[in-house]
Amino acid sequence: MSGFQINHIAIVVSDLSNALGFWRDALGLPVGRLEQNDTEQVEIAFLPVGGAEIELISPTSGETGVGRYLAKTGGGLHHLCLEVPDIDAALKSLADAHVELINAAPNTRDDGTRYAFVHPRSTGGVLLELYELPVPKAEA
Amino acid sequence: MSGFQINHIAIVVSDLSNALGFWRDALGLPVGRLEQNDTEQVEIAFLPVGGAEIELISPTSGETGVGRYLAKTGGGLHHLCLEVPDIDAALKSLADAHVELINAAPNTRDDGTRYAFVHPRSTGGVLLELYELPVPKAEA
Repeated sequence: MSGFQINHIAIVVSDLSNALGFWRDALGLPVGRLEQNDTEQVEIAFLPVGGAEIELISPTSGETGVGRYLAKTGGGLHHLCLEVPDIDAALKSLADAHVELINAAPNTRDDGTRYAFVHPRSTGGVLLELYELPVPKAEA
Repeated sequence: MSGFQINHIAIVVSDLSNALGFWRDALGLPVGRLEQNDTEQVEIAFLPVGGAEIELISPTSGETGVGRYLAKTGGGLHHLCLEVPDIDAALKSLADAHVELINAAPNTRDDGTRYAFVHPRSTGGVLLELYELPVPKAEA
């Protein structure tokens, strides 16, 4: 094991109900939870798939990154998120290799997840998110 | 558990060596194996990530689907492959829901994996591959 895991695949959709009509109703994936994020101006459906998730992201504004992606492409595969064991080490290794980082230092979500994005220009066209998950409290 | 798993994420790249310079050398993913597939006119690097794989696919011809995708987009996230417990049942459910299937019936790889593609027109822009893995011989 390398310590890497796929955390999620994000798919930008124009309409969450339509998207759930395919992914949940026709294909049969379970829906873990639904989230309305007014700060990021998106609605998200989280669909667990094994230990990973498919995230269906529907922008509620055309002014955000995902809103512009939807307008440009009509929707589709948006980004890949990989869990790494040590995000500081990963970002240093990428910077040393002259990889273009969207976030040179990680941000932290409310749940303690540390994350950073790598620019598609350095990955061959893939918007890549890196996660370092928080250590569970029992182990902290 | 729903029986669904992410099997692989396929990324189309223009040059496999350059792509490995990012995914293997800078990011640190292991490379499981390299394959040259003359029938499909592609070279593929398989990078295991947890129980799934990232497949870096480099077309050796502009006349194939991935060759045209590369010419049109410059490369990037190409398709998502999900393992399903019963591909015949999945395809019947999708057809009943009027989902457009690229393969109405599954094809079978040499290793016994049965697979079919779902058209991006029915998924909100995602080329989706479904796999039903062969039953291991010890259980057959």
